Amino acid sequence: MPAKLHLHPDRLFSSHGVERDIARRLYQQVADLPIVSPHGHTDPSWFALNQPFENPTELLIKPDHYVFRMLYSQGVSLEQLGLRRRDGVPIEQDPEKIWQIFAEHFPLFHGTPSSLWLNHTFVNTFGIDVKLNKQTASHYYQVINDALQTPDFLPRRLFERYNIEVIATTECATDDLAYHQQIRNSGWQGKVITAFRPDGVIDPEHEQFQSRLTKLSQITDLDCRNYDQYITALRQRRAFFKEMGATSTDHGHPTAQTADLTDAQARSLFDRIVNSGVSKTDVSAADAELFRAHMLVKMAEMSLDDGLVMQLHPGSFRNHNDQLFRVFGRDKGADIPQSIEYVKALKPLLDKFGNNKDLSLILFTLDETTYSRELAPLAGHYPCLKLGPAWWFHDSPEGMIRFRRQTTETAGFYNTVGFNDDTRAFLSIPARHNVARRMDAVYLAELVTRHMLDEDDAAVIARDLAYGLAKKAYQL
Amino acid sequence: MPAKLHLHPDRLFSSHGVERDIARRLYQQVADLPIVSPHGHTDPSWFALNQPFENPTELLIKPDHYVFRMLYSQGVSLEQLGLRRRDGVPIEQDPEKIWQIFAEHFPLFHGTPSSLWLNHTFVNTFGIDVKLNKQTASHYYQVINDALQTPDFLPRRLFERYNIEVIATTECATDDLAYHQQIRNSGWQGKVITAFRPDGVIDPEHEQFQSRLTKLSQITDLDCRNYDQYITALRQRRAFFKEMGATSTDHGHPTAQTADLTDAQARSLFDRIVNSGVSKTDVSAADAELFRAHMLVKMAEMSLDDGLVMQLHPGSFRNHNDQLFRVFGRDKGADIPQSIEYVKALKPLLDKFGNNKDLSLILFTLDETTYSRELAPLAGHYPCLKLGPAWWFHDSPEGMIRFRRQTTETAGFYNTVGFNDDTRAFLSIPARHNVARRMDAVYLAELVTRHMLDEDDAAVIARDLAYGLAKKAYQL
Amino acid sequence: MPAKLHLHPDRLFSSHGVERDIARRLYQQVADLPIVSPHGHTDPSWFALNQPFENPTELLIKPDHYVFRMLYSQGVSLEQLGLRRRDGVPIEQDPEKIWQIFAEHFPLFHGTPSSLWLNHTFVNTFGIDVKLNKQTASHYYQVINDALQTPDFLPRRLFERYNIEVIATTECATDDLAYHQQIRNSGWQGKVITAFRPDGVIDPEHEQFQSRLTKLSQITDLDCRNYDQYITALRQRRAFFKEMGATSTDHGHPTAQTADLTDAQARSLFDRIVNSGVSKTDVSAADAELFRAHMLVKMAEMSLDDGLVMQLHPGSFRNHNDQLFRVFGRDKGADIPQSIEYVKALKPLLDKFGNNKDLSLILFTLDETTYSRELAPLAGHYPCLKLGPAWWFHDSPEGMIRFRRQTTETAGFYNTVGFNDDTRAFLSIPARHNVARRMDAVYLAELVTRHMLDEDDAAVIARDLAYGLAKKAYQL
Repeated sequence: MPAKLHLHPDRLFSSHGVERDIARRLYQQVADLPIVSPHGHTDPSWFALNQPFENPTELLIKPDHYVFRMLYSQGVSLEQLGLRRRDGVPIEQDPEKIWQIFAEHFPLFHGTPSSLWLNHTFVNTFGIDVKLNKQTASHYYQVINDALQTPDFLPRRLFERYNIEVIATTECATDDLAYHQQIRNSGWQGKVITAFRPDGVIDPEHEQFQSRLTKLSQITDLDCRNYDQYITALRQRRAFFKEMGATSTDHGHPTAQTADLTDAQARSLFDRIVNSGVSKTDVSAADAELFRAHMLVKMAEMSLDDGLVMQLHPGSFRNHNDQLFRVFGRDKGADIPQSIEYVKALKPLLDKFGNNKDLSLILFTLDETTYSRELAPLAGHYPCLKLGPAWWFHDSPEGMIRFRRQTTETAGFYNTVGFNDDTRAFLSIPARHNVARRMDAVYLAELVTRHMLDEDDAAVIARDLAYGLAKKAYQL
Repeated sequence: MPAKLHLHPDRLFSSHGVERDIARRLYQQVADLPIVSPHGHTDPSWFALNQPFENPTELLIKPDHYVFRMLYSQGVSLEQLGLRRRDGVPIEQDPEKIWQIFAEHFPLFHGTPSSLWLNHTFVNTFGIDVKLNKQTASHYYQVINDALQTPDFLPRRLFERYNIEVIATTECATDDLAYHQQIRNSGWQGKVITAFRPDGVIDPEHEQFQSRLTKLSQITDLDCRNYDQYITALRQRRAFFKEMGATSTDHGHPTAQTADLTDAQARSLFDRIVNSGVSKTDVSAADAELFRAHMLVKMAEMSLDDGLVMQLHPGSFRNHNDQLFRVFGRDKGADIPQSIEYVKALKPLLDKFGNNKDLSLILFTLDETTYSRELAPLAGHYPCLKLGPAWWFHDSPEGMIRFRRQTTETAGFYNTVGFNDDTRAFLSIPARHNVARRMDAVYLAELVTRHMLDEDDAAVIARDLAYGLAKKAYQL
Repeated sequence: MPAKLHLHPDRLFSSHGVERDIARRLYQQVADLPIVSPHGHTDPSWFALNQPFENPTELLIKPDHYVFRMLYSQGVSLEQLGLRRRDGVPIEQDPEKIWQIFAEHFPLFHGTPSSLWLNHTFVNTFGIDVKLNKQTASHYYQVINDALQTPDFLPRRLFERYNIEVIATTECATDDLAYHQQIRNSGWQGKVITAFRPDGVIDPEHEQFQSRLTKLSQITDLDCRNYDQYITALRQRRAFFKEMGATSTDHGHPTAQTADLTDAQARSLFDRIVNSGVSKTDVSAADAELFRAHMLVKMAEMSLDDGLVMQLHPGSFRNHNDQLFRVFGRDKGADIPQSIEYVKALKPLLDKFGNNKDLSLILFTLDETTYSRELAPLAGHYPCLKLGPAWWFHDSPEGMIRFRRQTTETAGFYNTVGFNDDTRAFLSIPARHNVARRMDAVYLAELVTRHMLDEDDAAVIARDLAYGLAKKAYQL
């Protein structure tokens, strides 16, 4: 008889009576609040077209870099997992065979958030009650595959079942937002908004920088190799994104460097960059860094005009595995965090706009050493700064508790912005918010049992962390 | 009916029976020990003049950068809080109105040490038993304001009520220590000593460096723009401070860099610095850093002569918010910690004096990553080094437990120096020592419940951490 | 009556019932598994000659840098502890007097792993049941000294009593492995293997680099100042070490820097280094770093040929205390960790071999900030990478729990390699493995009580962490 799978109602809580009881009570008050997902990477076409998801493998394995990076680290090739090669070399085509490999390797995920998210999905979305392993793999495949063909598992229906109040996708500055338009036109009530992600037209080291500038020129009818017209084009795109519901911009820079160049300096730098050739290899690293730094300040300036909230996600060494990048492209689990500093890097921006209450800049990090050393002290002082939640590798029980322990004493709760799921794995969204709500309850219960906070006050904070702060910080 | 405020006798302890009971027993043995405050920033004029504190706002809000930095981060202006502008632009004058703003924003401090310290003060010093909020704000103001006019709340009386055995203030090298002299002459028995803080005459980037050199020349009758006379002047000032009770020096440098220049090199460097102009902008950053580095070694050399204990508080980016600094001046909650390294930086000093048991150099940090990586290994080897307690942003329950967890296994307890309150908020002193004593009890109780330490041994250590080590390390 | 010493059966476990019970059950299943010690510094002559250990001081104090560094930090000189000076200046000769000093200072070790290890040894190896202090010092000395003269305390007998399945020592590349040969020839069944540590012939800054090259030339009959012959010599030595049981190499570099030079570049660099003079001071730091970096890639290349597992132990500033190094030599407790980075440093090696499943590179760190930021993300992606356990200063209860908390969520359990004792203190080996098994049980029990893992799955993992992973990772 296969081993049973179930989600314990007290999971993630302390096993100690008093603390567990308080966590449970706090959690119960937020467990059913609607999901506000102000930052993520779901595909708007799902909600626009509302077609059935293809099969369990396409839905749960191929888009989830947490999953295939772990399998890859233990010797499973990406070809075996059916990830498409750029060179067309044949890969595994049978989704059920890929599912079988995944199932056999499932114990690798013990102790990881992926195991939490996946089991949550298996139980709550698909009603499965046995553990995933070699023996149960085809049962799983069958159950999930069958479900996906039913109306209850269409994207819009899942959106509703998941009680999502609003979800933001992320599109690059040159996106036509056609799917968002289609969602609006459809009359469906689900609130799917976009977020403005201009990295591709701001980062001279992005592999498509030059081609995206060309595209930007085309769609704006401006000459985006002229700095002033380029700036105008960005303003126009922001306005268009805002019209399509965007309340935020997102910036995925290698560092947090900012710079405040004069228009003359910026023109000259931009000119050097865009006229230096067609490939990123012709731009010097220093020029690229300076331009990104300058553009963060320009984005802040535009935010003060159009009111879009700014998000900065720095510190990832993207595509660290050259060979994999050449064969499979971006986002294959080979982005590695690096040490980062914020105090000097943000100073030019803060010197210019730091005291302005109308700017809202949400900071994220992959370098947890910055929580107590830099980020909480900065956010606990500057009116324009807020702290985004534990991000990416740290979007996990331990990661979340470290975030609270290391930021709260200096920045409090109200300089943070609630939870972001930041995912392209749509089905994991309820699980991720669930983990966040539970871990905040755990942290608050600690404060209550240690008599640093009344339970009444904790309940107010729990609700703000689960719902209120995200709506406020992202103006939703 | 307003919500009740009380201090739970088990606050900060684990909620788990065995662990809580041990923590309680350990704590009870140290709860009433006298306060030894070997490093802080209280104002000696309070104890010299023994005048009533002006009002609740002047006493509890305006001198507390922890308080106004949090309010500022959430959009309250410093003008609203009555902080004086250098340009004379009018600010809020009504202390009760400021108190009201503070009260309304009090939930911002949930989960922060400020909330612990303030509630401790409200209950224990003023006997208040309702929570501070919008509704209770004027009740609070009245109660505190009335109390301050009574003899029991005069500075000396509070000093005695708080059971302070000795407190050290911090004065700059050019201070005449008139208030300390006045305390001595008064016949009052309270022990208030000074500490020698020469940053203003050692750091070429200090905004008053040149004017303080002038003052140093005047008070010593030496030419302090001549290196040798400057060194002599510093020796004289140290002797004067020592005469006035100082047992320690304190150095608030941007980094921990030390350097051992020859006299000729030092003379030439000093000459370049002091003759380069009147403003700090004329000194190169490298020269300034080298001079500070060299002077740390000179200070160590002088400590070997006069026996003063040396404290190094590095790693803060002071006055990070330029605009605020220009309008309001120093210490407005805009000092931000930075990444720092000690291993290479301290080597010149350690190469020269590291093996000398007669030198005592107490190291502090704002970069918690250095606890286990650098500071505990250094202090667990070099006879001259000791570790100061969790500092500033980390003077908090989580900060203290991180300090113990990350230093004890390598440096033990006896390479640490007990607690420093490091505060200018006089009324918070008992609360701060209370938190430290409780958190050390929590940590020791963990070791006892995990059978790594007997409770008898833990009790000895608890007493040393609360009282004995500070007296020994600071020669009090 | 002297205070009793005993080892509590639940030591290191949580005091909370449910969690403790699970930890206890998990631990009991691994407590008696054989010890696999794949990396350490015991002396093969002990097992080759099987002579009695000299006395308690020679056995337990003098080889243990954890012990004398702590005593030294509190003012006990190394001369008082009988550590031999290079200059022949007389030192303490009486082992019992040294033992007495150690006993009097034993409270310094409260809260440190040394106290755990030593008490474990006192009770379990020597059957002592009173605490070590001034009063019991000579009782201890007598009991241990007497025991050491009996057959039950001969090295081979201890090896068997400790249930050691296999132990690896570490020898430099020029070692003749005579003791290993002697062990083999003796017919004794204990499995003692070597590991190949080439730092002395790879690091141009090693104080014996030039003389070891000479020795390498002699024993291989090659000209090891010619790059190609030098490489051949290293291949030969690896083959010889492998023949003598080695399954791994070990690299103790200052940084994790790797570089992939062409043969021509490498020849030219090597030539510049070996022909630059006889002392390390003539080699530029940059050349030395580049050569070490290049040789890590060469070692990886050779590992792909001969199958030896590679270990990288970077980040220690060796011999930080110049004066002590000159007088007493290496390994005197004055090695201090530094900040380190892996992401850029390892890229050249990973670009070349990172996707090759046949390479196994085990990474260690002294900079715990790299656990969650760099090491877990790297090991959770690259097939060739695994994470070594918490190392050196972090081989401790808190250090181990930090390791698991900060690596598991991203890298899982199966990208780690079980426990290394890494010690030259032979008698501490059972204690160290005991601590590791207990702390893994503690961590797993947390996951079980928080319902993130079934107890059945946890039991499998506990066994793998205590035994299976070390055998697999080190091919034992």
